Amino acid sequence: MAAALTLHPDRALPVDQRQRAAAREIYQQTAALPLISMHGHVDAAILAENTPFADPARLLVIPDHYVTRMLVSQGVRPEALGLPRTDGRPVETDPRAIWRTFCANWRLYRATPSQYWLEHELVEVFGVEVVPSAQTADLIYDQIAARIAEPGFRPRSLLDRFHLELISTTDPATSDLRHHAHLAGQGLGERIVPTFRPDAVVHLDRPRWRTEIEALAKVSGEDVTTYHGYLAALRGRRLAFVAAGGLATDHGHYSADTTPLSDAVAGRIYQDAVAGTVSPADAQAFAAHMLHVMAGMSCEDGLVMQIHPGVLRDHHDGFFAAYGPDSGFDIPVATEFTRSLRPMLQAYGHDPRFRLILFTVDETVYSRELAPLAGAYPSVRLGAPWWFLDSPEGMRRFREAAVETAGFYNTSGFVDDTRAFASIPARHDLARRVDAGFLARLVLEHRLGLDEAVETAVDLAYHLPKLAYRRLD
Amino acid sequence: MAAALTLHPDRALPVDQRQRAAAREIYQQTAALPLISMHGHVDAAILAENTPFADPARLLVIPDHYVTRMLVSQGVRPEALGLPRTDGRPVETDPRAIWRTFCANWRLYRATPSQYWLEHELVEVFGVEVVPSAQTADLIYDQIAARIAEPGFRPRSLLDRFHLELISTTDPATSDLRHHAHLAGQGLGERIVPTFRPDAVVHLDRPRWRTEIEALAKVSGEDVTTYHGYLAALRGRRLAFVAAGGLATDHGHYSADTTPLSDAVAGRIYQDAVAGTVSPADAQAFAAHMLHVMAGMSCEDGLVMQIHPGVLRDHHDGFFAAYGPDSGFDIPVATEFTRSLRPMLQAYGHDPRFRLILFTVDETVYSRELAPLAGAYPSVRLGAPWWFLDSPEGMRRFREAAVETAGFYNTSGFVDDTRAFASIPARHDLARRVDAGFLARLVLEHRLGLDEAVETAVDLAYHLPKLAYRRLD
Amino acid sequence: MAAALTLHPDRALPVDQRQRAAAREIYQQTAALPLISMHGHVDAAILAENTPFADPARLLVIPDHYVTRMLVSQGVRPEALGLPRTDGRPVETDPRAIWRTFCANWRLYRATPSQYWLEHELVEVFGVEVVPSAQTADLIYDQIAARIAEPGFRPRSLLDRFHLELISTTDPATSDLRHHAHLAGQGLGERIVPTFRPDAVVHLDRPRWRTEIEALAKVSGEDVTTYHGYLAALRGRRLAFVAAGGLATDHGHYSADTTPLSDAVAGRIYQDAVAGTVSPADAQAFAAHMLHVMAGMSCEDGLVMQIHPGVLRDHHDGFFAAYGPDSGFDIPVATEFTRSLRPMLQAYGHDPRFRLILFTVDETVYSRELAPLAGAYPSVRLGAPWWFLDSPEGMRRFREAAVETAGFYNTSGFVDDTRAFASIPARHDLARRVDAGFLARLVLEHRLGLDEAVETAVDLAYHLPKLAYRRLD
Repeated sequence: MAAALTLHPDRALPVDQRQRAAAREIYQQTAALPLISMHGHVDAAILAENTPFADPARLLVIPDHYVTRMLVSQGVRPEALGLPRTDGRPVETDPRAIWRTFCANWRLYRATPSQYWLEHELVEVFGVEVVPSAQTADLIYDQIAARIAEPGFRPRSLLDRFHLELISTTDPATSDLRHHAHLAGQGLGERIVPTFRPDAVVHLDRPRWRTEIEALAKVSGEDVTTYHGYLAALRGRRLAFVAAGGLATDHGHYSADTTPLSDAVAGRIYQDAVAGTVSPADAQAFAAHMLHVMAGMSCEDGLVMQIHPGVLRDHHDGFFAAYGPDSGFDIPVATEFTRSLRPMLQAYGHDPRFRLILFTVDETVYSRELAPLAGAYPSVRLGAPWWFLDSPEGMRRFREAAVETAGFYNTSGFVDDTRAFASIPARHDLARRVDAGFLARLVLEHRLGLDEAVETAVDLAYHLPKLAYRRLD
Repeated sequence: MAAALTLHPDRALPVDQRQRAAAREIYQQTAALPLISMHGHVDAAILAENTPFADPARLLVIPDHYVTRMLVSQGVRPEALGLPRTDGRPVETDPRAIWRTFCANWRLYRATPSQYWLEHELVEVFGVEVVPSAQTADLIYDQIAARIAEPGFRPRSLLDRFHLELISTTDPATSDLRHHAHLAGQGLGERIVPTFRPDAVVHLDRPRWRTEIEALAKVSGEDVTTYHGYLAALRGRRLAFVAAGGLATDHGHYSADTTPLSDAVAGRIYQDAVAGTVSPADAQAFAAHMLHVMAGMSCEDGLVMQIHPGVLRDHHDGFFAAYGPDSGFDIPVATEFTRSLRPMLQAYGHDPRFRLILFTVDETVYSRELAPLAGAYPSVRLGAPWWFLDSPEGMRRFREAAVETAGFYNTSGFVDDTRAFASIPARHDLARRVDAGFLARLVLEHRLGLDEAVETAVDLAYHLPKLAYRRLD
Repeated sequence: MAAALTLHPDRALPVDQRQRAAAREIYQQTAALPLISMHGHVDAAILAENTPFADPARLLVIPDHYVTRMLVSQGVRPEALGLPRTDGRPVETDPRAIWRTFCANWRLYRATPSQYWLEHELVEVFGVEVVPSAQTADLIYDQIAARIAEPGFRPRSLLDRFHLELISTTDPATSDLRHHAHLAGQGLGERIVPTFRPDAVVHLDRPRWRTEIEALAKVSGEDVTTYHGYLAALRGRRLAFVAAGGLATDHGHYSADTTPLSDAVAGRIYQDAVAGTVSPADAQAFAAHMLHVMAGMSCEDGLVMQIHPGVLRDHHDGFFAAYGPDSGFDIPVATEFTRSLRPMLQAYGHDPRFRLILFTVDETVYSRELAPLAGAYPSVRLGAPWWFLDSPEGMRRFREAAVETAGFYNTSGFVDDTRAFASIPARHDLARRVDAGFLARLVLEHRLGLDEAVETAVDLAYHLPKLAYRRLD
């Protein structure tokens, strides 16, 4: 008989009985709050087109690089998981076969956040009642497949089912935002907003830069063969995002460097890029410069600026060539913020129009750099644990390392970082549980009153994200 | 009705009931021990002049950059807090108004060590019985104001009230030590000692260096226009500090580099500084060199050397220009010790006359660099968690990361780092509680006997600081 | 009366009673499993010659730099501990005097893993019943001395007593492996295997390099005056190790850099070394290159590659000159893996013949670099906490930081790093207890079923090390 899959009501709450009781009391006040999801990577098309999800493998396995990389790390061939090859060579196309491989390797996810999220989804969203395994794979597959065929499980229906009050997509600077226009036409313009992500056009030495910049020219109507035309195009696109309900920009850079260049130097480097002769060092300097420029534009148009630096993308060239980006081989590096952000903060750190939210996958900077910065500059908020750190232990360490110096009110509250749409409620639920456990400890150690803890928990789950992204004042 | 402010007898002790019981038993043995406070920043004039504290805002808010930076970080204007402007433009002068702003924002301090310290001070020192808020601000203000007007609350009376057995001030190399002479005349020379801090005269490129060096010439009677005169002046001032009861020197550098220069190179750089042409790189090399030189002088005169590197001071030029140093915008950076200290430790690390105490705000070096160094070199002691890390979670992490490799007996025991005089007992109390909790865990995990834990706790609170600073052998 | 020394059955298990009960249940399933010890530094001669251990000081104090460095750090002179001087000048030769010094300073080891290991050895292996102290030193000395004189306490007898199923020695590339041949002749060839450690011949600028390279020529029969002869010699020695049962290579480098050189450049640098003119920078580049070369050879001959970088060896020249290497003055430095390993992983990271196990004494890389790498590349396994981190707190932090991203199954399971033969069971026992405690928390937090926790614990203690070193498929 297959092992039963259930969600214990006290899961992810602290072990100590008294602490758990306090945590439960705190969690109960946040469990049903609406979700604010301002850093997601759900494709706007999914919501605009509202077509049913294809099948369990395409919903839960193939697009989730947390899930596929773990299987690859244990020797499963990417083709067996249906990861599309860039050269078009054949990969597994039978979703049931992919699903079986995934279920047969369920033990690899022990103690990972993926396990927590997936269990939550399987039980809460799809009503699954057995633990995944080689034996139960087909049963679960059929159950999910049936569920996603129901009208109530289409993407937009899930918005309500998930209590999503506000969700942001992530959109390139070149996006024409037509999906958002369509959504706005359906009265969802305030609820589903775009986020402006210009990475592809500010990194001058990426192979696809020229293609991107041509798309930018087209969508903006500006002449991007000059640096000033390029800036005008960016400024224009930002305003288009604002008009479409956008609240924020998002910047994924290798380093947090924000050293500005003179107009002349920036222009010269840009011309080199147009001519195809830009050096890697110049391209890197330009990217840093553009963070500074973007901060200035944020002061003008009010978009909240998010930076999440410190990742070496596509660590294995061969894997990237075969399977493309975002396939699990982005590996963090040590990241410096104190010196790197200084030029930008010198210029805008005390500007009341500026708001900066900082994310990291280098935990060492929580107590050393980010909490001191967020605890001093009025413009800076410390984002929630990002990516690999969006986990029970990772979130606990974040609170322990950051709050004593930054306070709770200089953090952004919970911000998920989701590609897998169906995992959004699980992520928020987990964060609320971990925060309840942390706050319960403060209560039990007589460092905080229970009423203060509850108020803080509600703020972290709901009010602070809205404040951070300026949906509340 | 205002919420009652009380100090729970078990505050900051562990949650687990059995562990708490053991911690309580350990803490009871240290709670009443006298305080050794060898790294404080209380102004010697306050103790020498013994004038009453001015008002609650000037006692607890304005001079405490932990407190003011948090308010600034949430958008309170520094002027509203009475932070004096360097240009003399008006700032809030009504201490009651400042106090109200502080109390109205009390929630910002949740889970910060400032909250713990302030609660302790309010209740234990001033008898306050209500939680700070906009509503209670005036009531609390009046109560503190009345208390500090009493003769028993003058600075020197607090020495006894606080059980301060030994307190050090921090004094520039240029100090004439007249306040200490005055105190010695009152029989307090052994109890209130100066610490020699030459930062202002060893950093050749600081704007005020020339002014400082002129003061050094004046107080020492040496010709500081030459490098050798400068060294003679420093040597002389160190001896003056020794004569005034001084036990230690204190060095706040950007890096921990201790690479020595040849006499010729050091002399040439010094001449450049005198001529006003020193380069930043040379100034930095000279500062590193001077750490090496100071270690040598410590071998001669017996002063214990303290280094706390790794802070980028005055991160925001504009804020520094407007409000001066120590205003909350000093931000840590990653710091390297293993290679950096090597030249100095090669020379003096095994010298029985040498004693070095190391502080850090970069926690990553606890287990990686500082504990291995302190666990090998007989001259090295690992200082207590410093600055932002002088907090419940910070002190716990320190013990967990450092003790397994360094042992307890290669640490300095508790050393506070206090600007706010009235917070000294709170800080020691918190450290004793956190250490009791850590030791209790070792007892409950059968890694240490309760008698050993009690002995260790007493050593950490009292004997080890005296041993570290050579008040005991 | 002397304090009784006992081992509590619940030592090093969690404090919380319910968590402890679960941990006990998990630990009971692993406590009696055989030991796999694939990263030890026990001298093969000890096992081949099987002579009795000399005396308590030579068994437990003198060769254990964890133990001696702690005494040195508190001012005990190395000569008093019998540390042999390289200049042959006299040191303490009375083992009883050394033992007394050690016992009189027992409190220095409080909360260190040495304390845990030594207590375990004293009680479990030698039947000691009193806590070490100045008073009990002689009693304990006599008891251990009597015990090691018994035939059942000779080295090979301890293999059975300790349930050592598989133990590896660490052997230089120049070893003739005669001790292993002798052991194989006694039927122990599968149980005691060599590990190939070529550090002494790949670091071209070490003082002893020429001597080592001559020994390599002799043992291999190759002409090592050319780079290609040198490579042939290494390839040949690796095969000799394989023939002698070897499963792995081991590489202790200053950095994790694996940048390859062209054949021409590598050959030129090698010729410089032969000529005695190699530069430090070239020697460092060559060492990095050789990691890349060794990975390639691992693909050919199947030896598992172990790298443990990031230690500045012999921090104090004078101490090294007087007492030689491995005397407690090897100090870690911050270490970079993401960029450094990239060239090697680009070449071999997806090669099914390649297996790489990574160790670190820089904990910051667990969550940031090593877990993401191990959680992606099929060739990479994350080794157990190494050296200073092989401790209760260190092992707990490792699990908390690494498992959420890497999963359990991309770790090597427990691998000890032992010089002190008699401490091997204590180290495995401690690891099993700490893992049981960690897993028990997951069970109590409803993140893992108890049956899954037990299966995982058994895998970590027994199956994963065999899988990691390819003794199991």
